[in-house]
Amino acid sequence: MLDLVHRPGARTGLWILGALGDIATTLIVGGLAIRRGLRPPTGMVTALPPFNALPLTRLDDLVIGGVDIREGSVSASARQVGASSGTFDATLLDALAKDLAAVDANLVAAPPLAWDAQAPEQARPALSDVVAELRTRIAAFRTRHRLDHVVVVNLVSAEPEPPALPTTAALAALEAAIAQDRRDQVTPSMCSAYACLQESCSFINFTPNAYATCPALQQLAQRMRVPIAGNDGKTGETLVKTALAPMFAARNLRVLSWEGFNMLGNGDGATLENPANRASKIRNKSGVLSQMLGYEPHAGVHINYVPSLGDWKTAWDLIHFEGFLGVRMSMQFTWQGCDSILAAPLVLDMARLADFAFRQNEYGPMAHLACFFKNPLDVEEMALAPQFEMLVAYAADHLERIGRCDPIRDHTTTQAG
Amino acid sequence: MLDLVHRPGARTGLWILGALGDIATTLIVGGLAIRRGLRPPTGMVTALPPFNALPLTRLDDLVIGGVDIREGSVSASARQVGASSGTFDATLLDALAKDLAAVDANLVAAPPLAWDAQAPEQARPALSDVVAELRTRIAAFRTRHRLDHVVVVNLVSAEPEPPALPTTAALAALEAAIAQDRRDQVTPSMCSAYACLQESCSFINFTPNAYATCPALQQLAQRMRVPIAGNDGKTGETLVKTALAPMFAARNLRVLSWEGFNMLGNGDGATLENPANRASKIRNKSGVLSQMLGYEPHAGVHINYVPSLGDWKTAWDLIHFEGFLGVRMSMQFTWQGCDSILAAPLVLDMARLADFAFRQNEYGPMAHLACFFKNPLDVEEMALAPQFEMLVAYAADHLERIGRCDPIRDHTTTQAG
Amino acid sequence: MLDLVHRPGARTGLWILGALGDIATTLIVGGLAIRRGLRPPTGMVTALPPFNALPLTRLDDLVIGGVDIREGSVSASARQVGASSGTFDATLLDALAKDLAAVDANLVAAPPLAWDAQAPEQARPALSDVVAELRTRIAAFRTRHRLDHVVVVNLVSAEPEPPALPTTAALAALEAAIAQDRRDQVTPSMCSAYACLQESCSFINFTPNAYATCPALQQLAQRMRVPIAGNDGKTGETLVKTALAPMFAARNLRVLSWEGFNMLGNGDGATLENPANRASKIRNKSGVLSQMLGYEPHAGVHINYVPSLGDWKTAWDLIHFEGFLGVRMSMQFTWQGCDSILAAPLVLDMARLADFAFRQNEYGPMAHLACFFKNPLDVEEMALAPQFEMLVAYAADHLERIGRCDPIRDHTTTQAG
Amino acid sequence: MLDLVHRPGARTGLWILGALGDIATTLIVGGLAIRRGLRPPTGMVTALPPFNALPLTRLDDLVIGGVDIREGSVSASARQVGASSGTFDATLLDALAKDLAAVDANLVAAPPLAWDAQAPEQARPALSDVVAELRTRIAAFRTRHRLDHVVVVNLVSAEPEPPALPTTAALAALEAAIAQDRRDQVTPSMCSAYACLQESCSFINFTPNAYATCPALQQLAQRMRVPIAGNDGKTGETLVKTALAPMFAARNLRVLSWEGFNMLGNGDGATLENPANRASKIRNKSGVLSQMLGYEPHAGVHINYVPSLGDWKTAWDLIHFEGFLGVRMSMQFTWQGCDSILAAPLVLDMARLADFAFRQNEYGPMAHLACFFKNPLDVEEMALAPQFEMLVAYAADHLERIGRCDPIRDHTTTQAG
Repeated sequence: MLDLVHRPGARTGLWILGALGDIATTLIVGGLAIRRGLRPPTGMVTALPPFNALPLTRLDDLVIGGVDIREGSVSASARQVGASSGTFDATLLDALAKDLAAVDANLVAAPPLAWDAQAPEQARPALSDVVAELRTRIAAFRTRHRLDHVVVVNLVSAEPEPPALPTTAALAALEAAIAQDRRDQVTPSMCSAYACLQESCSFINFTPNAYATCPALQQLAQRMRVPIAGNDGKTGETLVKTALAPMFAARNLRVLSWEGFNMLGNGDGATLENPANRASKIRNKSGVLSQMLGYEPHAGVHINYVPSLGDWKTAWDLIHFEGFLGVRMSMQFTWQGCDSILAAPLVLDMARLADFAFRQNEYGPMAHLACFFKNPLDVEEMALAPQFEMLVAYAADHLERIGRCDPIRDHTTTQAG
Repeated sequence: MLDLVHRPGARTGLWILGALGDIATTLIVGGLAIRRGLRPPTGMVTALPPFNALPLTRLDDLVIGGVDIREGSVSASARQVGASSGTFDATLLDALAKDLAAVDANLVAAPPLAWDAQAPEQARPALSDVVAELRTRIAAFRTRHRLDHVVVVNLVSAEPEPPALPTTAALAALEAAIAQDRRDQVTPSMCSAYACLQESCSFINFTPNAYATCPALQQLAQRMRVPIAGNDGKTGETLVKTALAPMFAARNLRVLSWEGFNMLGNGDGATLENPANRASKIRNKSGVLSQMLGYEPHAGVHINYVPSLGDWKTAWDLIHFEGFLGVRMSMQFTWQGCDSILAAPLVLDMARLADFAFRQNEYGPMAHLACFFKNPLDVEEMALAPQFEMLVAYAADHLERIGRCDPIRDHTTTQAG
Repeated sequence: MLDLVHRPGARTGLWILGALGDIATTLIVGGLAIRRGLRPPTGMVTALPPFNALPLTRLDDLVIGGVDIREGSVSASARQVGASSGTFDATLLDALAKDLAAVDANLVAAPPLAWDAQAPEQARPALSDVVAELRTRIAAFRTRHRLDHVVVVNLVSAEPEPPALPTTAALAALEAAIAQDRRDQVTPSMCSAYACLQESCSFINFTPNAYATCPALQQLAQRMRVPIAGNDGKTGETLVKTALAPMFAARNLRVLSWEGFNMLGNGDGATLENPANRASKIRNKSGVLSQMLGYEPHAGVHINYVPSLGDWKTAWDLIHFEGFLGVRMSMQFTWQGCDSILAAPLVLDMARLADFAFRQNEYGPMAHLACFFKNPLDVEEMALAPQFEMLVAYAADHLERIGRCDPIRDHTTTQAG
Repeated sequence: MLDLVHRPGARTGLWILGALGDIATTLIVGGLAIRRGLRPPTGMVTALPPFNALPLTRLDDLVIGGVDIREGSVSASARQVGASSGTFDATLLDALAKDLAAVDANLVAAPPLAWDAQAPEQARPALSDVVAELRTRIAAFRTRHRLDHVVVVNLVSAEPEPPALPTTAALAALEAAIAQDRRDQVTPSMCSAYACLQESCSFINFTPNAYATCPALQQLAQRMRVPIAGNDGKTGETLVKTALAPMFAARNLRVLSWEGFNMLGNGDGATLENPANRASKIRNKSGVLSQMLGYEPHAGVHINYVPSLGDWKTAWDLIHFEGFLGVRMSMQFTWQGCDSILAAPLVLDMARLADFAFRQNEYGPMAHLACFFKNPLDVEEMALAPQFEMLVAYAADHLERIGRCDPIRDHTTTQAG
């Protein structure tokens, strides 16, 4: 079991938008399995030193709830996800049956007020009703479980994005658009983020829908004095890219072309078949290179839906580069990872870190979480190593301050894995 | 042309042990081509900011000489290397013919006193004679060209290494062994390094022969107040490994196995067919992982001689790792690079940086050059990113100091590539 | 369910040497699952047309038994194999529990007379006793189940092979050596094969131990009028090699180097860590190229034990080749397959085909099975396509003859998969 | 030197449509280099036995000419192609300077009557004038060099293809459309092919423009009693595909997905950036799988323009397949080949084989050339091995007949390479 430093008494809620998807299901199963000591916390960054010395919320004290536009239960989606991806089996789910049922009790499987942009006009409630309804649900969740704080994580599918919206720049414009039910100016994720922040929740956007953390919503986070972070979890090909590209830069090897092909077969893949939905993700994946290299190489990011792969993303990248005397060389890599398995622990990490930040009276964009995102808020740096150093420095700084304030504290730091 | 900051008047020698090998030939051709403005300085780290703002020796002021146990000339080896690896053509060599001939004049193609360990007993001179002869040659080179300082780079083949030598620990023991002609206790590279350091040269060991920078020789570098650096240039698979492994560590992804296969067909490859010669190289390549990961994964490093590849090394690595919920995933990469092209510019970089350090009165192990080596001297850190940060910090520190001392200095910093 | 043409009444035994290994366990589980209609016959060649039109033994009429030097049961090894390789789960095994128990009743888990060459001298019975004991067991199996014919498949581990044995050339010499208990001249597999053939069983050697089908034993198969086939099942890297190499030949592209790296972590992999055990396998894998290409390229076949991979073999091959104008190009492939899953159905196929051949009064080396082996008996051709054509032609020929003899026959041919 | 069987006296013309492209340039340089004994005939299928025993036209007796819509000369394009792809150097071109100039004398660098479909309406001549002009040029070429026969090879770029044309079905309709100048019903390649066939030339369509060998034009070939062959040279990814896919079929391994990514940076790649131009090529590449497997797997064929790769195509394919017990496995391959180097020798092969067929009074679609094409005329079989067997059988058949007719013939068969 993950023997994390205890913060007695306090309880934190983790409210998931898109609670029946693959990542959500996997993080719920995994969080419960770690809590029960049935699995090690491999893959969780906060299980590593120095983070495991911080007084973060224990998984035991994390209450999970959420909403999804699909009907169903986590108990059911866990059976389906585990079987189709081969990542966890019936034996584990049997052992967690009660815990899963408890989470199911916190889910709103089919909310009366959907924020699905594709719903027919007449079937869609007013935006202000959507906001009110979501706030009501979160408030009820908080009250029912006597939670000190709720962290919301956005795990819905990639949305089509209008090219530019006046509502993203200023909170007043966004609030006016919601009041006037201007659905052409408010994306579903913006609407959700607005409600959550208004409800004083920390807000983490794991999706590529970057409008969910636009300047207007950052203003709101500042005003509500809650943390906000995003966008687009960095779990596979882009993760590798941000580890590798600095190597070429540090050797003055000129990248001529960097072509990446991503194949995946899960629901995410099906959604991304639609070029409109794929646009923001590809932009996030593409943008990282020029920042790290200092120039724009020919670069392509391709996403293909290959149903048989299911949740097992396979990415292949070809890097063509030029070295001394203009000689051209190449590198290629294949990444074969299970998307949900890679993403899920990071959501638990960020829920714990957002909750911690909130209790430290930190608010607004959380730059120290940059290493978790393809397109981090308020951070220029795209390379993984310095991003991770920012997180280590954040932890070291807090540990030092905690040490100063509380010299008799007994840190029971434990090893991950 | 590489428009480097000029340090007027001063001239530096670069003396190469193994001057007719692939790397040496390539760095000579490349250095001359850049000097003549025929090729950009791609691949040279010192052509990048902030290093290009340091007052390093210009390539124009670098005089190249050296020795080799083979007969021949750089002019001839350049024809052969260029043709077999396709890295530079006759047109370029024609344009550089005079410059190459000038380098040839500084070469001792078949030294009367070889330090080849394999030579028959009776044909081998006393170790003290080898030392004296090498010193004489370097001194003559220095005098002939009125050099302020000479940097020696060791580029000979991988040597078999005795498992432990009492001479490596203390300078006195090494000197005694040389005096007594104890060839069983002094490797060829140790003997060369001893002579060079005695001659007040900076010494850079690019080979895997780590005894060349053993504690005894580090002592000598301290005593002679010259810089020393090594071991084993990091140019291919290990370079990638030190960029990638920290990614797994930063995500708490447990590496189960990391198998690497290196195929190469150049002279280096032929030498490494011999397990005795290969041992030190494999040790250097293997050691890096456990430092970066904090544990020992199952790891194999294999080197295979594949003649048709020539100087084009192809490496394939399989990384099998475990994530959340114990799920196993994998990554593989193929690296197809030309060894000499990757190594040569780094030798030029280090010659310039060693010369700079010497002029700054810095001596002994140069920790800031760690990023260039598989097995860096006096540095625990194996990950590429923090190693490179050490070099950047070194440059920044010197630039600041230079700025303070010399406020009117006009830095003409230029972009590489 | 595999609806194969029925041959009413006849029952065939499949006796496995090494019945508790990964391949044996997988073929037993798979055969039973197909019989029960729980899995499709994917991977079985005899489920394809035209083979599915031949009156082969139905899986229903195949009785499985065997021996193993390990203690245990298939029921138990199935749990272990399924869990560690993720190839079949508890749900399937629960459904097959009775069937597996029935197979277990036919197994001799710890035979009193082991043929393990590594056993201490005093603990080893006389070779003639080993032969007699194995014959007794097979006879008992045949009697108990009233079997018309028994096919033996050798699935034991790779054995070390003495470089040359006089006993392999002539049956008389082999029999004399057995009589005189000359264990230095008879390998365990030779001893087993001798007993099985004496007992009038068809004999299929799926292992790399080629002495099991040496000329002496081929003579015995001729004398006993039973089929014999081998050696070394072709399931992964070599399968791909024999599909790809003819492409280079057909385009007059000259293969310069073909380097293959095989990583595996199962028991087979552990055994093959020992160079003596690996020798025959590597020889089989290497030999194929020169036959297909007509010359000897530089070729390496490497086998590495990587425990975390378990039964999932990962092979990477680099093919470096020369084309028009002497230009060098390359191809590489990665094969990620589960060894047992690839091998198991072929054993079922060959058991059915050997039984069929026996009933057709065919005996001695079965050239038409060449496509199943790395090192086929009596067949020079190594390329997969013409080998497969031999099998198709064999089936077509028999179908035509059957059609001529039995014009009213109603073939219910069915599609696989 | 390729010592091919001499057919004294006879001279054959090879007329190239698109004579300044990469493939054309490479085949001209390569053919001349082989003729001069400066390079071996590696990559030429007709240099292999048994083809090298057929009395094919010697390269010495092949006169090369052609047209291109670009201005220029082969002498110039050879410098450019050799330098950019690194496939042949200035030394070779210097040695061939006179031979190249002789070819240049046969080229029409900027024909007054272009058949470029993209040309502005008013600038385009009537179709009948285009036909007449091309016929005039070929006739002049034939007369000037006293050629017995001319083989035309179409090497122009991929053209956009109208979805269906009534003119493709029947020769009369095509001729009417040409007469009426219906450019919407006649593609440039159809127009060229019509002219060439009318001029009694053998016609080989190496491009993906399949209309060039449509039924109407096949009729014309029949009527003119000349051979015709196509479509779309099989040189890289598809070549590998047709070698590998039969392996999966022969093992009853079910291919779930086969995704292929082709990156290339030559003129061909630039043209194929246009989806309209790419359509026919992708169709040809895709169609092969279902024929070989007997079902339609999920399959994607992607073509990406990556300028830095130049003529060096890099293709990566992922094959996801299912085996015994429904277990999913995968294979991936990377192909790194120089397109022109792979294609050029096949054009020489087919020119020789078409000329041979013509002299044997064979005409219409040449099924025995199927192995050279992605989308062969009149042949269902897509697998490489049986296609190659058709070519071998053709040669064997002719060799036997020649042997019978001409018993005193002295075949000087020689080995390639």
